[in-house]
Amino acid sequence: MKSGGPSAVPEWADAFAEFAPQMAVRWWDDPTVAPEQVDYALVWDPEPGRLAAMPRLKAIFGSGAGVDKILLDPHLPKVPLVRCVPPEGPQRMGEFACWAVLSLCKDTRGFALAQAERRWKSYDPPFAATDRTVGVMGIGAMGIRVAEMLRALGIPVVGWSRTRKTIPGVETFAGDAERDAFLARSDILICLLPATPETDGILAAPLFAKLPRGAGLVQLGRGSQQVMADIIAALDNGQLSGAVLDVFEKEPLPAESPAWLHPKIIVTPHAASSPSRRDRARYITACIAAQQRGEPLPNLYDPARGY
Amino acid sequence: MKSGGPSAVPEWADAFAEFAPQMAVRWWDDPTVAPEQVDYALVWDPEPGRLAAMPRLKAIFGSGAGVDKILLDPHLPKVPLVRCVPPEGPQRMGEFACWAVLSLCKDTRGFALAQAERRWKSYDPPFAATDRTVGVMGIGAMGIRVAEMLRALGIPVVGWSRTRKTIPGVETFAGDAERDAFLARSDILICLLPATPETDGILAAPLFAKLPRGAGLVQLGRGSQQVMADIIAALDNGQLSGAVLDVFEKEPLPAESPAWLHPKIIVTPHAASSPSRRDRARYITACIAAQQRGEPLPNLYDPARGY
Repeated sequence: MKSGGPSAVPEWADAFAEFAPQMAVRWWDDPTVAPEQVDYALVWDPEPGRLAAMPRLKAIFGSGAGVDKILLDPHLPKVPLVRCVPPEGPQRMGEFACWAVLSLCKDTRGFALAQAERRWKSYDPPFAATDRTVGVMGIGAMGIRVAEMLRALGIPVVGWSRTRKTIPGVETFAGDAERDAFLARSDILICLLPATPETDGILAAPLFAKLPRGAGLVQLGRGSQQVMADIIAALDNGQLSGAVLDVFEKEPLPAESPAWLHPKIIVTPHAASSPSRRDRARYITACIAAQQRGEPLPNLYDPARGY
Repeated sequence: MKSGGPSAVPEWADAFAEFAPQMAVRWWDDPTVAPEQVDYALVWDPEPGRLAAMPRLKAIFGSGAGVDKILLDPHLPKVPLVRCVPPEGPQRMGEFACWAVLSLCKDTRGFALAQAERRWKSYDPPFAATDRTVGVMGIGAMGIRVAEMLRALGIPVVGWSRTRKTIPGVETFAGDAERDAFLARSDILICLLPATPETDGILAAPLFAKLPRGAGLVQLGRGSQQVMADIIAALDNGQLSGAVLDVFEKEPLPAESPAWLHPKIIVTPHAASSPSRRDRARYITACIAAQQRGEPLPNLYDPARGY
C-alpha cells in the first residue's frame, strides 16, 4: 500500500487488523516485500511501471473514488481496478455538500472574516436556503445521496447527468440538450462530475454565464475541471456570489493561489467525502472477500465510461 | 417602514412587491408621506410619539420576534402589535443547527484558520457525523425542527425538555431527574433553552462535566445562559472539543472578548434563526390579508404575558 505515505501505514494496519486480521499489510517501499509477493495494491498515485512488476496482483484498489492518477501509468496491468467508494462515502459527501450549501446561504465566509477581525457583522440574509434551488451536476452514488440529504433539509434540488437518472422529489435533466436548462435553474451549483476529457476545464466563464446571476458554486469534483481565473472573475463581477472549493488542479493548493484570501471563496483541503481509513479498510476487506468467493468486484473502473 | 434604515428600503420594497404588488411601501422619513396616510407601520425602534400621530394605523408590525424596543414608546397607539415570527423561523434555526453540527464534526474552524494562513490542512476525520449523537436541550417549535432536520441527515439525536415531548426517531428525556442521563448521551449539545431565571448561567463547568469528554457545544439560546470563562477553560482542557456560539451576554460581542480568536470557537452574530426580509415580507403580507378578511392577527403582543 502507498496511499497516505509512510506516516499513514500504522493507521491503515490498525484499520485492516480490525476487519482482516490475517491480512499482511505492507508499505509500498518495504524492502522486505518482493513485487512477486503482492496480491493487492492500495494506491492513489503509483509510480508508473511499479504495478506492472507485480505478476500475482489480483486487483488494484484506488484509495479514492477517482482513479485518474492511477490511469496515468502507461504500464497499468490488466487486473480489476476498484474505485474506493465505501458505503459511508456518499453519506460523508452529502454531509459536506449540505455544510457547503448552508455556508453559502448564510454567508459564513463573511462570519469567518469578521471573526478574524473581532468584528460583529450585522446579519440580514438576502435569501433563505429553501428559496434557493441547488443543482447537482453528476448523479452517481454520491450525487444521489447529496440530492436526498439536501431535499431532507427542505431545499429544492434539480439534477443533471449524461444519462437520465431518477431521484424522488428531484427534477432531473439529461445530456447536452438539457444542460443549459438545468444550469438556468441552479441557484447553487454543486459539481460532482468525474474527471474525464469532457469535464476538463468545464467550470469556466461560458458555464457560469448560464447560471442565474449571483449563483453559488460548490466544487466537489476534480481540480482539473475548474478554471480558477474564471471563478475569481465571476466572483468579482457578481455572476457568482460565493464558492466553496474542495479540489484544486494542484494539491496541496500552492500558497500563491489567489483562492486562499479571496473574500468569497471557502477553501477546504479535499475533505468532502473523505471516508475515514477505517471506513475504507472495511470496504476493501469486503471487496477482497467477495472476490475470493468468486463474486464480481464492485465499482470497477470502466474504460468505456472513462471512470 | 423604518426597520433596517434607509439602505434597506429597496430590498424591503422588492420583497413586498413580490407578495403584495399593490402595496405602497414607503420609508419612515419620506417627506411626501403624511402620517395621516399610513395604514401599517413596520418598525424595530420607532421614535416615541411618531406612531401616535398616525390616526389610520390598523396595526404595527415589529420586525423581530421581540417587540421590547417598540414598547418603550409611552404614546404607543392602541392598535394590534404583531410580533414577527414567520413560519420559516424553525426552518432557519434547523438549517443553522445542521450547519453548526457539521462544522464541529468536520472541524471547519480548523479549515478557516488554515485558509487565513494559506496553509493546506491534511484531513483525515477522527469520526463521522453519523457516529456522533446530538443532544437538543429545549424542545419547542425550534427544537423539534432542529431534531427533525438532524435526523434527516442520518445523525442520531436525543432531546431534553422540562416536560416530556415526543419526536419520531428521537429518544427524549424530561425534567431534572433525567437531565444528567441526557447530557451523558450528548456528543454535541445544542442549547435552545429560553431565557428564564432557571437557565441563567446554565452553560458552565458543572454542566460540561456531565457531557462525554471532547463534546461539542452549539449555543443558540440566550447569551445570559453561558459562562464564557468556563467554556474557554473546558475547550482548553479538552472537556469540550469545539463550540459554535451565536448569542452572547453583551451583543455586539465586545472586541476584547476571548471568544473571537479562540481556535476552537466559531463566533456568529446572532444569526441562527434570522428570517430573511423576503420571509418577513411574505409573513406580514399574509397577516394584512387575514386582517382584511376579518380574521384575527396572529402572534399579537400580549401585555399580560409580557411578550
